Amino acid sequence: MEPFRLDGERLWILDQTLLPREERWIEIADARGMVDAITHLRVRGAPAIGIAGALGLWLEARRIVRDEGGRAQAGPGSVGLLARTGIETLRSAARSIRVARPTAANLGWAVDRVLRVAEEAASPRSDAGVSAEIADAETWTRAILAEALAIWEEDRAASRAMARWGASLFRSETRFLTHCHTGGLATGGGGTALGVLLELHRSGRLISVWATETRPVLQGARLTAWELQREGVAVTVVADGAAASLLARASIEAVVVGADRIARNGDVANKVGTYPLALAAREARIPFVVVAPSSTCDPECRSGAGIPIEERDPSEVLAYQGIPTAPSGVGASNPAFDVTPARLVTAIVTERGVHRAPRFLLAGVDKGSKYR
Amino acid sequence: MEPFRLDGERLWILDQTLLPREERWIEIADARGMVDAITHLRVRGAPAIGIAGALGLWLEARRIVRDEGGRAQAGPGSVGLLARTGIETLRSAARSIRVARPTAANLGWAVDRVLRVAEEAASPRSDAGVSAEIADAETWTRAILAEALAIWEEDRAASRAMARWGASLFRSETRFLTHCHTGGLATGGGGTALGVLLELHRSGRLISVWATETRPVLQGARLTAWELQREGVAVTVVADGAAASLLARASIEAVVVGADRIARNGDVANKVGTYPLALAAREARIPFVVVAPSSTCDPECRSGAGIPIEERDPSEVLAYQGIPTAPSGVGASNPAFDVTPARLVTAIVTERGVHRAPRFLLAGVDKGSKYR
Repeated sequence: MEPFRLDGERLWILDQTLLPREERWIEIADARGMVDAITHLRVRGAPAIGIAGALGLWLEARRIVRDEGGRAQAGPGSVGLLARTGIETLRSAARSIRVARPTAANLGWAVDRVLRVAEEAASPRSDAGVSAEIADAETWTRAILAEALAIWEEDRAASRAMARWGASLFRSETRFLTHCHTGGLATGGGGTALGVLLELHRSGRLISVWATETRPVLQGARLTAWELQREGVAVTVVADGAAASLLARASIEAVVVGADRIARNGDVANKVGTYPLALAAREARIPFVVVAPSSTCDPECRSGAGIPIEERDPSEVLAYQGIPTAPSGVGASNPAFDVTPARLVTAIVTERGVHRAPRFLLAGVDKGSKYR
Repeated sequence: MEPFRLDGERLWILDQTLLPREERWIEIADARGMVDAITHLRVRGAPAIGIAGALGLWLEARRIVRDEGGRAQAGPGSVGLLARTGIETLRSAARSIRVARPTAANLGWAVDRVLRVAEEAASPRSDAGVSAEIADAETWTRAILAEALAIWEEDRAASRAMARWGASLFRSETRFLTHCHTGGLATGGGGTALGVLLELHRSGRLISVWATETRPVLQGARLTAWELQREGVAVTVVADGAAASLLARASIEAVVVGADRIARNGDVANKVGTYPLALAAREARIPFVVVAPSSTCDPECRSGAGIPIEERDPSEVLAYQGIPTAPSGVGASNPAFDVTPARLVTAIVTERGVHRAPRFLLAGVDKGSKYR
């Protein structure tokens, strides 16, 4: 299950705000369209919006060539002018994509990576002269697309690797709790935390999953429950506030979540509501495992205190599908993420393996549990 | 603000499921009607459903006199027959009210208290002969009503006392977080935790309140926000999952909640989602204060493990106002309450005072905080 569809030169995204009621694919034409889709959560999930940002830059490069390339007499040799005007436009688009959602590390990471390729492909190498390597605008956009597709494909591969690494941590017949949605639609395909659970399920290990509904946008109730149901996994939705007591009553054996940004010290920013689950997991002495590709790790960020937390529109909290949930005139606070300190995290699974640096080890995990 | 209106012989309750959109008062005629209102949360809040149960028994006694009293030739001397047939019917009604919601201690406590009066008033004292004290059925129902009204009035007085005791704990300019709804409508009038906050506000101390929306029934967003707004208190609604990180970011100085049953060891059952708030309060080193009348304390219950936790219909989680929040066919777990261990509770405020037995003291509360 993937959030994007590339059909020749046309890019479509599955509008995740309408799921599970409706599966509607919408076409994205340029960076502005992608920023709108990212901002309104039509595509969401840290790895997915990284890929979305990369593809958005490619769409923007095509738009630049189409709109400005005409003026620049597109064709062989036109890259000199593109290098001067187009790159500036593309840089501006990159900035607007970068800030569309500030918390996920993957977005800035992917946008920077694609922008670098665009800059390199547009700049003549000093030892080769103008257009020595870049024949024309077509080649320029192709180089950008190639980088975006590489990011997408690497994320697919990372999902597969994380699924295997994560699954290796658990025996069969494990009862999990997960938060928000971390499946194929939140990534390039495959998923992070949900990818681990689906790997366990597909390899015949019996699992059951409790999914927090994840207010205010209900990604757990809408997307996780839907994806698990489609895969035939037993899934039970719970209100966010009920998760802690479920853990306390020992009916659940592990909490597995994704991440939006991981600081150098192991602090994890993830969907708001993750931190109280980590507190409850520690109290219940069950493992709390974070699954995220290394593109989510931000070496520039020393600790969770430095992670920007996106504050979203209060209307998400104050109404559901247009029906008010609170009296009019009342305000709401709507942070989209919270930070779980590294000391509450048992392990971080990336595509490179299971990271259990001492600071990721939860003191008091029962060695006799199903978690090895 | 009170949840009941007694108009001569007619009892009305404010349908809290429709608030804040609509203020509709519905008449309750007998025990069955009251059980229905309690079960569907038209009246809710532990102290309020205690009073509702007491009033429900009175309505049932009147129904018995009306329906069965005719057969028993109601009038002077008829109490002998009422004692044989009516009391059995009333006992059966008491049982059905008692189990309408199993967690709140106040319900069973109030029903038992009224039933005892009904039994005593219907049973001739051995030294006095039949009807020596109870002249007729009218006197019987009046004795029952008097006890129900006493419970109601005692709860009003308890609210006033708790408000003063609780307010004495805090200085001015305190920022609070509260969960669910504990205002006048949740009690006989006045409120428990919210009563403390309103006392601080009315006495001119500047407070601001963050109210968790309290899924699945949204008592926080619907009722707490509404009541605080009416009283002119600055209120901000937050998703349940967002509360812990608000506490961690030190923008809130105390958590104040109500209770549905308090075990002998100080463990507190309250609306689901309370326990993770207590964990987050301990982590943030801010006080976690429980406010409840002594009728909420259950001396029969040794610890939280013995408190029955009501499991409500999954449909409350899976839809909001008829709009599904999850794909059809998916199940939900819907415990209405959770248990907060006594070690996480800083203090319990009842009408008798502030209880800070060593087991209620939170190790590590910052003595320099506004909490004295």
